[in-house]
Amino acid sequence: MTTDRSAIVLLSGGLDSATVLAIAIDKGFAPIHAISFDYGQRHSVELRAAKAVAEHHHVASHRVVHIDTGVFQGSALTDDIAVPKNRDDEQMTAGIPVTYVPARNTIFLSYALAIAESLNSTNIFIGVNAVDYSGYPDCRPRYIAAFEQMANLATRAAIEGRRLTIHTPLIDWPKVKIIERGLELGVDYAITHSCYDPQPDAVHALGCRPCGRCDACLLRKRAFEHLNQTDPVLE
Amino acid sequence: MTTDRSAIVLLSGGLDSATVLAIAIDKGFAPIHAISFDYGQRHSVELRAAKAVAEHHHVASHRVVHIDTGVFQGSALTDDIAVPKNRDDEQMTAGIPVTYVPARNTIFLSYALAIAESLNSTNIFIGVNAVDYSGYPDCRPRYIAAFEQMANLATRAAIEGRRLTIHTPLIDWPKVKIIERGLELGVDYAITHSCYDPQPDAVHALGCRPCGRCDACLLRKRAFEHLNQTDPVLE
Repeated sequence: MTTDRSAIVLLSGGLDSATVLAIAIDKGFAPIHAISFDYGQRHSVELRAAKAVAEHHHVASHRVVHIDTGVFQGSALTDDIAVPKNRDDEQMTAGIPVTYVPARNTIFLSYALAIAESLNSTNIFIGVNAVDYSGYPDCRPRYIAAFEQMANLATRAAIEGRRLTIHTPLIDWPKVKIIERGLELGVDYAITHSCYDPQPDAVHALGCRPCGRCDACLLRKRAFEHLNQTDPVLE
Repeated sequence: MTTDRSAIVLLSGGLDSATVLAIAIDKGFAPIHAISFDYGQRHSVELRAAKAVAEHHHVASHRVVHIDTGVFQGSALTDDIAVPKNRDDEQMTAGIPVTYVPARNTIFLSYALAIAESLNSTNIFIGVNAVDYSGYPDCRPRYIAAFEQMANLATRAAIEGRRLTIHTPLIDWPKVKIIERGLELGVDYAITHSCYDPQPDAVHALGCRPCGRCDACLLRKRAFEHLNQTDPVLE
């Protein structure tokens, strides 16, 4: 049994990872080191949101890891591929989305693993969700379990008996439950950013406003509506 | 069964990866895409060697992926930690070396996975060796098998039935066998670089000469001697 309570939290600036951060804090993990990735995503507003979320929750450190932008190709999140709009639930969950980025979570988790080892931490939190984004191969429980197993063979820490755990508290939660729990834990969803196709807007705190019509916007919007609320980023 | 014969080859510029490249070519893999990593290692001579090796073997492409240098900490390869010298075989194989870099092969293989998927390739070659470097956790067959299993859950390619293979032709070869096979296949070991503590030398083709006394130098030197040859980098 490890008594290590420090944690690495992957923070994208989106609704899910902001909730994961609040959950890690609520569970008593400390210190918490947040990491975000600059991978040439079309919307660097994500990184501004991640910084705002990290500050809101007073993490011990927030590190932005730069990823060579030539690596990710063929995704609507990094290339000039149209982001689909106004899709219904059935369309959203059919097949692998154009916003899929090759091996993204594997690279993110690998960096988290390196940073965890260098900080002597044995806990990594990631906000993957297999409900809303069932088309992403690297959001499935089987994938996470396989990564954890690999990680526990990969490092000096593992050989020395410090077992690494990948925490995925949201993996089977519907969006409504994620938002409900986040609101209980004091997440400020107004400073999060989920939109795949943000529009510049100098008035908005993050310098962009969400499109309101891509899959990510619609998932949030419908979940807040279900709770008889308005998504604060759309206000 | 896949008929894909393209391959990604991880090329460090060292003796092992140069041999792996020659083996992949000999086995008929084509086109071959070599990738190297710039991760703030103390000896950028590695990257010059990798370029020379890639050119010598006429690969289809050679890409250098830049890795955020803040990630790797606490290794003699990236920090100012003394490289041990003149160790015997027993000393070399005891424990995890100070030249161990946290989660390095996991990050390298994750990038290779992303690039493989973006190039529609299902083959990754890596020159890990569990004989000479038995102290590195991420050079063991169990680790490689676990990474391959994870990779085959991680990507769209895998979901669509294109199974990825991590090829480790050297994993159980002693250094003598590696060099013998490489010489048969036309590897030019004079342009490879393995030393952990290279010394600037304007006369040398790569701008540095090996120290001749670190573990990496000694492993090569002794293996060439066993073959009644002199390591060409020490001539």
